[in-house]
Amino acid sequence: MSRTNTPSVPSAPLRSWWGWGWESAHPDDAECVAMGALLPGTLARPLPVPRIADLGIGAPAVQPPASLARLTSTDPADRAAHAMGKAYRDIARALRGRPGRIPDLVAFPTGEREVADLLDWAGEHRVAVVPFGGGSSVVGGVEYRGDRHRAVLSLDLTRMDRVLEVDPEGRAARIQAGTLGPSLEKQLRPHGLTLRHFPQSFEFSTLGGWLATRAGGHYATGRTHIDDFVQSMRVVTPAGIAESWRLPASGAGPSPDRMFLGSEGALGVITEAWVRLQARPVHKASASLAFADFGAALGAVRALAQSDLAPANCRLLDSGEAALAGAARDGSAVLVLGFESADAPVDARLAQAVDLARSHGGRHEPSESGAPADEAVNAWRSAFLQMPYLRDGLARMGAVAETFETAATWDRVPALVEDVRRTVGEAALKISGHPATVNCRLTHVYPDGAAPYFTVLAAGRPGEEVAFWDELKTVASEVLHRHRATITHHHAVGRDHRPAYDRQRPHPFALALRATKATLDPHGILNPGVLVD
Amino acid sequence: MSRTNTPSVPSAPLRSWWGWGWESAHPDDAECVAMGALLPGTLARPLPVPRIADLGIGAPAVQPPASLARLTSTDPADRAAHAMGKAYRDIARALRGRPGRIPDLVAFPTGEREVADLLDWAGEHRVAVVPFGGGSSVVGGVEYRGDRHRAVLSLDLTRMDRVLEVDPEGRAARIQAGTLGPSLEKQLRPHGLTLRHFPQSFEFSTLGGWLATRAGGHYATGRTHIDDFVQSMRVVTPAGIAESWRLPASGAGPSPDRMFLGSEGALGVITEAWVRLQARPVHKASASLAFADFGAALGAVRALAQSDLAPANCRLLDSGEAALAGAARDGSAVLVLGFESADAPVDARLAQAVDLARSHGGRHEPSESGAPADEAVNAWRSAFLQMPYLRDGLARMGAVAETFETAATWDRVPALVEDVRRTVGEAALKISGHPATVNCRLTHVYPDGAAPYFTVLAAGRPGEEVAFWDELKTVASEVLHRHRATITHHHAVGRDHRPAYDRQRPHPFALALRATKATLDPHGILNPGVLVD
Repeated sequence: MSRTNTPSVPSAPLRSWWGWGWESAHPDDAECVAMGALLPGTLARPLPVPRIADLGIGAPAVQPPASLARLTSTDPADRAAHAMGKAYRDIARALRGRPGRIPDLVAFPTGEREVADLLDWAGEHRVAVVPFGGGSSVVGGVEYRGDRHRAVLSLDLTRMDRVLEVDPEGRAARIQAGTLGPSLEKQLRPHGLTLRHFPQSFEFSTLGGWLATRAGGHYATGRTHIDDFVQSMRVVTPAGIAESWRLPASGAGPSPDRMFLGSEGALGVITEAWVRLQARPVHKASASLAFADFGAALGAVRALAQSDLAPANCRLLDSGEAALAGAARDGSAVLVLGFESADAPVDARLAQAVDLARSHGGRHEPSESGAPADEAVNAWRSAFLQMPYLRDGLARMGAVAETFETAATWDRVPALVEDVRRTVGEAALKISGHPATVNCRLTHVYPDGAAPYFTVLAAGRPGEEVAFWDELKTVASEVLHRHRATITHHHAVGRDHRPAYDRQRPHPFALALRATKATLDPHGILNPGVLVD
Repeated sequence: MSRTNTPSVPSAPLRSWWGWGWESAHPDDAECVAMGALLPGTLARPLPVPRIADLGIGAPAVQPPASLARLTSTDPADRAAHAMGKAYRDIARALRGRPGRIPDLVAFPTGEREVADLLDWAGEHRVAVVPFGGGSSVVGGVEYRGDRHRAVLSLDLTRMDRVLEVDPEGRAARIQAGTLGPSLEKQLRPHGLTLRHFPQSFEFSTLGGWLATRAGGHYATGRTHIDDFVQSMRVVTPAGIAESWRLPASGAGPSPDRMFLGSEGALGVITEAWVRLQARPVHKASASLAFADFGAALGAVRALAQSDLAPANCRLLDSGEAALAGAARDGSAVLVLGFESADAPVDARLAQAVDLARSHGGRHEPSESGAPADEAVNAWRSAFLQMPYLRDGLARMGAVAETFETAATWDRVPALVEDVRRTVGEAALKISGHPATVNCRLTHVYPDGAAPYFTVLAAGRPGEEVAFWDELKTVASEVLHRHRATITHHHAVGRDHRPAYDRQRPHPFALALRATKATLDPHGILNPGVLVD
């Protein structure tokens, strides 16, 4: 397999092997320097863009039989691009020329039979198999750590990228797991339907990845988690293929799908799923409100979450986050509200929501043009999609730009957010010697709690960015544990959250998971180190 | 332990050991005869009410140590009342003096430590433990079948019946598993909150039973399944206590709670849970519409389920069901619609729903008084709660009165309902020699499908009611399987649905469940025969 661009076809934008998204969207050196200037203590000039040739990638340790070799690549470019996900930690390692272990092979199966054959071969030869969708894991979910396997195979599902069937009456579709977000929506569009699942990684993540990691969508309330969209799944395990029935609901024993949802490739490889779709929304309205501070706004958000209003968007930005996104510059916290419907106008619901937020101290200042979408909304949206690229630019300046997220019941949210700000901020200052910024937003809200999302920006410790990150992660995990806030609301566990996950999950459940793993994956080849050993 | 009523306290209504609910609510002999007259081929006079004294209950096969004996009863009345659930099959067995195996002991633990001690003792002595909440299982979920254990202990949780904590801000409560529906709501009422989970068995079922069987509530759409109300659970397993964290949402691995939800006592004993509550609805409105036939109404129901309207009630009765409930007598199918909110009036939503249903052929005839609640709604409600009592009356006349339920995607619903009607009707006719009635209603609706609920009324085969039932169940299960409709939407698997369940679940999931069972319940004492062997 080779990576050539024939001259007659305009070359597609190139994915970055080491950083987020498209190479062409990366900030250039001058932009990196400008960003770095905002954070005292960063480098004077950016670290160079890392080159695959400098990684010294050697020959693979194994060679599959011809029948499988035709599905696999040993090209260093493919192998480097499958060595890690896209966490800050991964970017920092790549920039310092020390990425995670490079897989020996990258396989691109085109169907379920090929997936099963690859697993059979890997099981016989003690080859670790790391399922790989869009590769956007930010928790060390798609790399291999350790040395207990003879070789590592990255199993790239993106050649399985088709919508296979659409049921317009029941609004559902059977979709292959390797379908990336934009392609999935493009294939559904002619049917007037949408999955309406838009995680921040949408452009660079797949249906299978969403299912394996229990992804959270863009919307703040209601049906937003991928879990809720699953009608049935097909999963290839070394012990056979698991296919659940296509059902709107069932009470027959514990849910088989829920065992594979969140299994992160450790119990099987998801190859396809029937998912629930929705009509495309045609009515939309949004607004933003300013609050004196984050704490004051929490009451408004809770009231909204406990009402019948069901806002599609209900995102609370603290003052730092609002300033960074250009949504407010006066120290206000900003609440971004949005409503959507395929059925009926939503202006009345938006008005009720704005009234409710005002009754909790929110200030609503419609834009002068009177347009329904406030400027703050648009500013935030645009900043949101740029953030991962900016993070990589900061990383090139030696800064630490880390995000982590959690969820907790309402009674714990205020103290949790305060504690994270203080403790993580102090730790960053102590390690780097420079003040750090710790911002917070709520990404999802529930009647019984919320999901705070934190961004840490700090000058790094040159040459020791990874160690710095590991210290910060340990400190942050400890704070979350202290407040019994989950180690992850939608980023998944991967390898980075494994220690905290082991403390969080009930012990008998760990025993059950271990027994399940031993049964479904007797050779221990599936994403080793994830969830259980 | 003894069952005495002290003279100074008015005696509480007595639960029937063999039939549904309260003894005092059972139809008398004359009422039974009147009901039987409606079904040609039934007995001339009712079977006598069975008596515990006739069961010949002997001494228990085991005796626990004194520390546990104080928690247990060997009283024949207690043991008879814990021998079975309340399926038609159970009633028929009791009436013929052949109930399921009578447990040797009934334990009434008052706390988690006692539950753990009882499990420890049972594990050491090869005693089967059958968890028992309200005892309203209609699938053989609370009895013992077989002879591989030295003795049988029925573990009655109803002494663990308190709301332990309420979080008003986050609308949640920590509740003991043995709390019966009415007591649970009574304890929440002073806080202005409600669990709002009302299965038909509400009066005679417990929180723990709902969780263990993935109970479906009364409401047709949205949050109605108990699964969605769970924040966290505590479960005593022979391998230790599993406690999940109290979280509004989490993406940390497969959900531990979802493993125990639907585990039907086979993996552990649920002792308490934090559940999500709601404000008590104050705005209500309901209406009913008539349709030429069931098929015509399906389009209306699907449109409602796929809209934003979210009716609390959206129950479609076929003509037979509507006639039986007194909701229509002209052969119409009837759609019962209801809206509820704690926030705002719901009349506008009801009006929109009625318009939508009309556009699909529904006829809306408001009652003459102009009152918002139509007579059909009230007639149906009242019949609904009487049904299990009427079923037992018919059973005394030797009739078979069976209900079963399922769920399927919209594309399969029409053919499925038609096939059940025809095939089950023909089978009943062939077995009994008399025409049978097969009615259908939709109890729950989803954007992608619906949950049909069937009632079969047939003259029995005197003295062979259980064999008749077994044949009907086999036929019905076969039809469901043919249409890939789940063997249960909310009644659970128990022992009666086990063969169908084994065919339905994915094989690798069965392997995982078996491995989990072997790990959490190494002595195989927990509800043996349920879910896995």
